[in-house]
Amino acid sequence: MTSASTTAVVRADGRTVDQLREITITRGWSKQAEGSALIEFGNTKVLCTASFTEGVPRWLKGQGTGWVTSEYAMLPRATNTRNGRESVKGKIGGRTHEISRLIGRSLRAVIDTKALGENTIVLDCDVLQADGGTRTASITGAYVALAEAIEWAKTKKLVKANATVLTDSVAAISVGIIDGTPMLDLPYEEDVRAETDMNVVVTGSGDFVEVQGTAEGVPFKRAELDALLDLALIGTKDLARIQRETLGL
Amino acid sequence: MTSASTTAVVRADGRTVDQLREITITRGWSKQAEGSALIEFGNTKVLCTASFTEGVPRWLKGQGTGWVTSEYAMLPRATNTRNGRESVKGKIGGRTHEISRLIGRSLRAVIDTKALGENTIVLDCDVLQADGGTRTASITGAYVALAEAIEWAKTKKLVKANATVLTDSVAAISVGIIDGTPMLDLPYEEDVRAETDMNVVVTGSGDFVEVQGTAEGVPFKRAELDALLDLALIGTKDLARIQRETLGL
Amino acid sequence: MTSASTTAVVRADGRTVDQLREITITRGWSKQAEGSALIEFGNTKVLCTASFTEGVPRWLKGQGTGWVTSEYAMLPRATNTRNGRESVKGKIGGRTHEISRLIGRSLRAVIDTKALGENTIVLDCDVLQADGGTRTASITGAYVALAEAIEWAKTKKLVKANATVLTDSVAAISVGIIDGTPMLDLPYEEDVRAETDMNVVVTGSGDFVEVQGTAEGVPFKRAELDALLDLALIGTKDLARIQRETLGL
Amino acid sequence: MTSASTTAVVRADGRTVDQLREITITRGWSKQAEGSALIEFGNTKVLCTASFTEGVPRWLKGQGTGWVTSEYAMLPRATNTRNGRESVKGKIGGRTHEISRLIGRSLRAVIDTKALGENTIVLDCDVLQADGGTRTASITGAYVALAEAIEWAKTKKLVKANATVLTDSVAAISVGIIDGTPMLDLPYEEDVRAETDMNVVVTGSGDFVEVQGTAEGVPFKRAELDALLDLALIGTKDLARIQRETLGL
Amino acid sequence: MTSASTTAVVRADGRTVDQLREITITRGWSKQAEGSALIEFGNTKVLCTASFTEGVPRWLKGQGTGWVTSEYAMLPRATNTRNGRESVKGKIGGRTHEISRLIGRSLRAVIDTKALGENTIVLDCDVLQADGGTRTASITGAYVALAEAIEWAKTKKLVKANATVLTDSVAAISVGIIDGTPMLDLPYEEDVRAETDMNVVVTGSGDFVEVQGTAEGVPFKRAELDALLDLALIGTKDLARIQRETLGL
Amino acid sequence: MTSASTTAVVRADGRTVDQLREITITRGWSKQAEGSALIEFGNTKVLCTASFTEGVPRWLKGQGTGWVTSEYAMLPRATNTRNGRESVKGKIGGRTHEISRLIGRSLRAVIDTKALGENTIVLDCDVLQADGGTRTASITGAYVALAEAIEWAKTKKLVKANATVLTDSVAAISVGIIDGTPMLDLPYEEDVRAETDMNVVVTGSGDFVEVQGTAEGVPFKRAELDALLDLALIGTKDLARIQRETLGL
Repeated sequence: MTSASTTAVVRADGRTVDQLREITITRGWSKQAEGSALIEFGNTKVLCTASFTEGVPRWLKGQGTGWVTSEYAMLPRATNTRNGRESVKGKIGGRTHEISRLIGRSLRAVIDTKALGENTIVLDCDVLQADGGTRTASITGAYVALAEAIEWAKTKKLVKANATVLTDSVAAISVGIIDGTPMLDLPYEEDVRAETDMNVVVTGSGDFVEVQGTAEGVPFKRAELDALLDLALIGTKDLARIQRETLGL
Repeated sequence: MTSASTTAVVRADGRTVDQLREITITRGWSKQAEGSALIEFGNTKVLCTASFTEGVPRWLKGQGTGWVTSEYAMLPRATNTRNGRESVKGKIGGRTHEISRLIGRSLRAVIDTKALGENTIVLDCDVLQADGGTRTASITGAYVALAEAIEWAKTKKLVKANATVLTDSVAAISVGIIDGTPMLDLPYEEDVRAETDMNVVVTGSGDFVEVQGTAEGVPFKRAELDALLDLALIGTKDLARIQRETLGL
Repeated sequence: MTSASTTAVVRADGRTVDQLREITITRGWSKQAEGSALIEFGNTKVLCTASFTEGVPRWLKGQGTGWVTSEYAMLPRATNTRNGRESVKGKIGGRTHEISRLIGRSLRAVIDTKALGENTIVLDCDVLQADGGTRTASITGAYVALAEAIEWAKTKKLVKANATVLTDSVAAISVGIIDGTPMLDLPYEEDVRAETDMNVVVTGSGDFVEVQGTAEGVPFKRAELDALLDLALIGTKDLARIQRETLGL
Repeated sequence: MTSASTTAVVRADGRTVDQLREITITRGWSKQAEGSALIEFGNTKVLCTASFTEGVPRWLKGQGTGWVTSEYAMLPRATNTRNGRESVKGKIGGRTHEISRLIGRSLRAVIDTKALGENTIVLDCDVLQADGGTRTASITGAYVALAEAIEWAKTKKLVKANATVLTDSVAAISVGIIDGTPMLDLPYEEDVRAETDMNVVVTGSGDFVEVQGTAEGVPFKRAELDALLDLALIGTKDLARIQRETLGL
Repeated sequence: MTSASTTAVVRADGRTVDQLREITITRGWSKQAEGSALIEFGNTKVLCTASFTEGVPRWLKGQGTGWVTSEYAMLPRATNTRNGRESVKGKIGGRTHEISRLIGRSLRAVIDTKALGENTIVLDCDVLQADGGTRTASITGAYVALAEAIEWAKTKKLVKANATVLTDSVAAISVGIIDGTPMLDLPYEEDVRAETDMNVVVTGSGDFVEVQGTAEGVPFKRAELDALLDLALIGTKDLARIQRETLGL
Repeated sequence: MTSASTTAVVRADGRTVDQLREITITRGWSKQAEGSALIEFGNTKVLCTASFTEGVPRWLKGQGTGWVTSEYAMLPRATNTRNGRESVKGKIGGRTHEISRLIGRSLRAVIDTKALGENTIVLDCDVLQADGGTRTASITGAYVALAEAIEWAKTKKLVKANATVLTDSVAAISVGIIDGTPMLDLPYEEDVRAETDMNVVVTGSGDFVEVQGTAEGVPFKRAELDALLDLALIGTKDLARIQRETLGL
């Protein structure tokens, strides 16, 4: 499927099927947070902040391990039509819950909580503008904010200078099949047309943290799954490089 | 990984790595619902009911298509220690939301909503006893309840007798890597020890509807992912057969 | 009113006016709970579990007394048409609250909380299928689950082996006046037709714990009240015997 | 039990066992509501208002019958120590639900909803000061507010002048057993000491609308139940007279 | 604007533009609260209670300072048409929140929290009948309840007898511009017609605690603001005198 | 107080007492909304979007008038320490409610809803970074977003090209007294030290829409109020000029 013929497909925004949108990461965007990054995947813009506090929730106390968690949300007019605020509705929707949990799990996969010590880091990913891929941009940006916060904590001697708190980097990308062709990094207009939609979270070393594939219409074949994973690995490798450059590593 | 050496692994409950627990499906368990099944994956017991009502939610009216949705919940003492009720807490947790959405998507993948007509089916999956695999048992049992409800609707002439409402069957199973060995259908004690945990939803034809893999500790390799998918296809093929037998097809 | 003429009344299900529906109690239904019973009053099926935990709520600490409480709920499709989940609505309805409180009070009436010591027992009564009398089945079944949990606690030496934690047994039944005739143990179709509806909770010794009578249409006379209480004492005496047999006492 | 010896019992407030506290009903207390009454049972003060509106809830439309419902609440400092507001907690407690439902049922028992026509009356009972018996004072006062509102509706020609909307009057009183002695109309200090506590709702004709008896400690005997009902009939007869005088009937 | 010509304006209730409605304060209305006042501004009636408890919220502990807070609410039928209860809706509206906060701030402005010591006073202002000015009546009445509660605490030796807990008195009044004329103390019918509406909270010494002016239609001029403040100072001076007389100072 | 001596006061950030922080307004920040502006008052950054939709809420239908409303919120880490999300808490706090209402009233003061026609505009003000003055920045930025949205609607012919929907501009600023000196546009560090704090909303013509002054510690004098209003008029005049320049008017 990623054969010569399909690479000739030209997408609405001029990209090839295995090409990321323009990725921009502005680290240190927030003057308030211990770590932060404004990440852009094309027109998708997510503000990621990492809030570091000493201590852990009560149920973790005295075990010498830290805690990393995440919350995801969208501004009401991040999207093409306005969505009511979840604070006004008085409850969090299923999609929000699901993505918040996904981000938290993804980042915890590269954290050594023993090395973090009894400290808590909350990663907030707030979508300022949405054009597809908000959850993958969130994970990718949250990693940068997290790395910044850990650096900050080492400077403040809240974490040992030589501790390897981050065991690897982590990034995520969406892939999908549109009109039978697997494609990388779907903007909204491609996302709604995708027959199969997959979000893949991959470490800097190229191992999987999460694979979430969903048939939107027709169930998908094993070969299609394989082609999508191939694309995802191309994309996340590129994102890992951009993260390293942003962090000056 | 599913090599000769690993098939020699004996699990706590005496199963081989590619063997399902004892599966029991009691269809028509409920005297009240249009379709129902009590499904058991070993000690996991889920009551699945399908509630058929004429008409669709307002936003779907006049389009000639039906609506299938799902809600999942656990009784407070389905588990080893009691969990507070979500009704008492006043909100639904992230895990509940996530599983309810997964079940709904999985069943919708085999429904032709045009053939269903402007009718609504709500699938309720209530876990009476939990021992791992509650979401996969729910999907597998909900399919039986759904098939029963559609049969009922044809008898009542609410759906055309010759309509192919169900385009395929659907079943789901969990797989995971425990001490480096991929295994099928994890009970709770294996689930908590799994390094990688995957839920796979597959049609009767063997195509994928959902693939959700999560690294609980160490990220996983592509080869591990492949081995897990192999096991999942073995398990869901078996479940599809049991579903057919239960429905007398 | 329970005169010769009325005993000749034949009910839709063939019972006499002073006859219980078929009562089945399956103790130990749950592998997870410290005590449990699946109780059936005809087509009404309620799963009762007793969760025993050491310690008491903060406001009771240090007083040497235990705590017994209860929560009642219905599965959404326990009834003839589906009811929305209270967890989804985000609040518990008045009827649920009322019945939960009734069950708790009824069981506490036969518990010596000093003998229980600083331990907590939560009784969960979940209606799997509803056909009238769900609250009375819940109380009757919860007693069996409670007795099992106390037996378990004695085995585990969490409660003294010779402590008389249960001072008596307790059971409950509904009675009502239909077309002017007092009847025992109303299924749903009789319940909706009843002019007066009463739930009576009685100890094994035949004393009253709760009497709740309600005129659904026309107010009722003292003589009618007396006739209903007579029937309730017949029914609860029978239930107390079945409870004893179930528990092997 | 209401023998010569027990009538000699002198209560803390100087009353005999079968004597009501001082009862005061101020009708027309509110300038805003269509009907209202401030009712006092000793130090218990409840403001009851009846809000009459044309039309009925959607599910009742076109059936030619009206709707009467009730809501009960306590001001936070009606009691000896302050209780948090249910509006601040974001949910209504079980006790509030239970009493609101009891008041509604009690008043509906004396309303001919056909004669009321497609109109709605909401009875609000707000406890300004609590000293036991707040639910029985609420029912007794709500009847007066209801009668006023119906009178108002007849004047406004919203209800036919000759319609018998109220088929009877209704009043309620608490009774209980303290130190083995049945007593009428319990203030708070007696209520907390009662072994058995009963609330009885009775029509002006002396028939029962509700009987709710609860063993607080020791289960109660049939003879005790009978003695309590005797007292309740004495008390509600007196209340019915006061209601008639208040309404000038 | 408060020129000779405008003082000739006669209002619907016969008052001059700078005249308060009839003000009545009944102190000690509640038998339960440590301090209380039923305050009436014409037909507006608010029950204010002050609940004194030893100790402070956790975040204030050990600092030697007290805490004063307030909650405001309306009975559902205080107004001309019935408003749904906030407890039933499950959330507090913006207006309620805003007024509760205003009352709390206003009273804290005249409290020396050091002199109060580690004690908490909650001021509940419940509107029994509403006819405009409920927030200003609440502040004015809450001051009397607060003064009573502090007197009570001194008697009980919970606060030092010679401590100056109250540094001044505080009262509030509404003013507004109707048909171009500034007027004092607006009842509901004037309030809805006002072009500009202002609530002013003033100490007994004549200094400002809060000034909240809102243009309802046309923005207002500085001269109009000045005229409104002049009126408010006249009204609050009168209220301060009535407060002193009520408290016997 | 704004005498020669006080103008010599140098503030921590080097401003004079009557000087605004650096103000930046980036219009058209959002690609999704019909109108938008990112406004900065020093380090305070608020994203304001205006969502235009045809039609009005049901209770306004058929009256030929439009509806403008507003919602304000803060990102959890906009502030120096993280605040829990209101969506997670399940309810909106009093401060959020109060500011949302203030923004809505302020903008409605310069809208001719008849000229707007039966259309709705929702103004969302989301604080990305907070350093004092978030509500005043919100009002000032929301005006720009609103003007953009109306321009858009005229282009789309949803509003008549020659309609004067905006009758004036509107801007807001905070003023306060710090160490006895009135100052304009307080950043967080000044705000917490202010004895009196005032938010003033002023039209382009220099008339008042809202005046909200609060004594944080000591009540304030009339002369202080006057000095604060003088400063506020200086600041809002400057803001009105910046708004005009941003909009190219």
